[in-house]
Amino acid sequence: MRVPVVQNILSANDQIAQENRKLFDSRHILVLNVMASPGAGKTSFIERTIETLRDRLRIGVIEGDLASTIDTERIARLDIPAVQINTGGACHLDANMIRTALPRLPLDRLDLLFVENVGNLVCPTEFALGERLKLVIASTPEGHDKPYKYPGMFSAADVLALNKIDLLPLLDFDLDNFRRGVAALNPDTALFPVSCKTGEGVQAWADWLLARQAER
Amino acid sequence: MRVPVVQNILSANDQIAQENRKLFDSRHILVLNVMASPGAGKTSFIERTIETLRDRLRIGVIEGDLASTIDTERIARLDIPAVQINTGGACHLDANMIRTALPRLPLDRLDLLFVENVGNLVCPTEFALGERLKLVIASTPEGHDKPYKYPGMFSAADVLALNKIDLLPLLDFDLDNFRRGVAALNPDTALFPVSCKTGEGVQAWADWLLARQAER
Repeated sequence: MRVPVVQNILSANDQIAQENRKLFDSRHILVLNVMASPGAGKTSFIERTIETLRDRLRIGVIEGDLASTIDTERIARLDIPAVQINTGGACHLDANMIRTALPRLPLDRLDLLFVENVGNLVCPTEFALGERLKLVIASTPEGHDKPYKYPGMFSAADVLALNKIDLLPLLDFDLDNFRRGVAALNPDTALFPVSCKTGEGVQAWADWLLARQAER
Repeated sequence: MRVPVVQNILSANDQIAQENRKLFDSRHILVLNVMASPGAGKTSFIERTIETLRDRLRIGVIEGDLASTIDTERIARLDIPAVQINTGGACHLDANMIRTALPRLPLDRLDLLFVENVGNLVCPTEFALGERLKLVIASTPEGHDKPYKYPGMFSAADVLALNKIDLLPLLDFDLDNFRRGVAALNPDTALFPVSCKTGEGVQAWADWLLARQAER
């Protein structure tokens, strides 16, 4: 007698993430899951990217926060479609939150979708959302030791930005040490040093992203 | 017939936290649970406090990180008893981790114990460790909107520090806005603006802490 064996069942979150991803792929939307510490500059980075690429790509944003609509108001001021998810107490977004937010976005008219996760260097990596790329943003005031202390996040990154490089002259930030920490975990990740304040480095990042979107 | 009803059972974590607290109280050790975003300057703040108070109080430190012993090495360089807890993947310390670390500290010869939690503005508030005070450290590069976005953490704080005030002239940080956000959640919390780089504000904090320790 053969008993039925069901294998490779996805978790509920992974199941929904896979459905989200199929939906995004079918519409050729490049989706980025943007993760960072609180205050690393996720929203500023998205704003700078929008400024730089808005004539080339149609961009949408999902903002995740425990509370408040501060970030979505910032994005909406740029006349970009944006939806706020408030997680209540949850320390990360999940795939079902994204699915629930999608009807509020004009998916037929998007090339690029930023999903700004809750500010947290630990929990968000464990929940796939359906994204194609995990973008991790570090910032210089946090210190160069973050890859060593939060290896899960820096291992998960498909691409990294290091924000607030305008502050480098004032900080004891060892860029080589930071790069070594990243390379030990994730040797092939592109790293873009940027300043969302001055705009330095943003063009190189935008060019890279534009090339990724063209692959969709 | 009366059925037995057992009420007010503590969770396993709260049970152990209560036992930790009794132990600390019996030895008149003031214990602080230090919480902040990654890179807000928790270790630097503890180092500055040690420098300022080491002639008045006997101080110990427990360092919590997902990985690495970087912070404990920093504290140990000051000839202060320190223990590193590596949580593996966990985004917060818990009471049993603290209990497990205690035999590595000279509790008979401590007046003050800092427990530096994992850098995270969400998860650590949900796990009591047995501390008397929850110290939350914000930092100016993170932005003035953090109380609005992480209300749980700022509500839980017994005392707050705002670090990196030496960078204020370079940042768009609205201190009044930050104070209003804190006051709305937690009107009675003391807030100490400090710079661990220059030492500004550290003495006022140390005086406050010394007074709290004297109450033990």
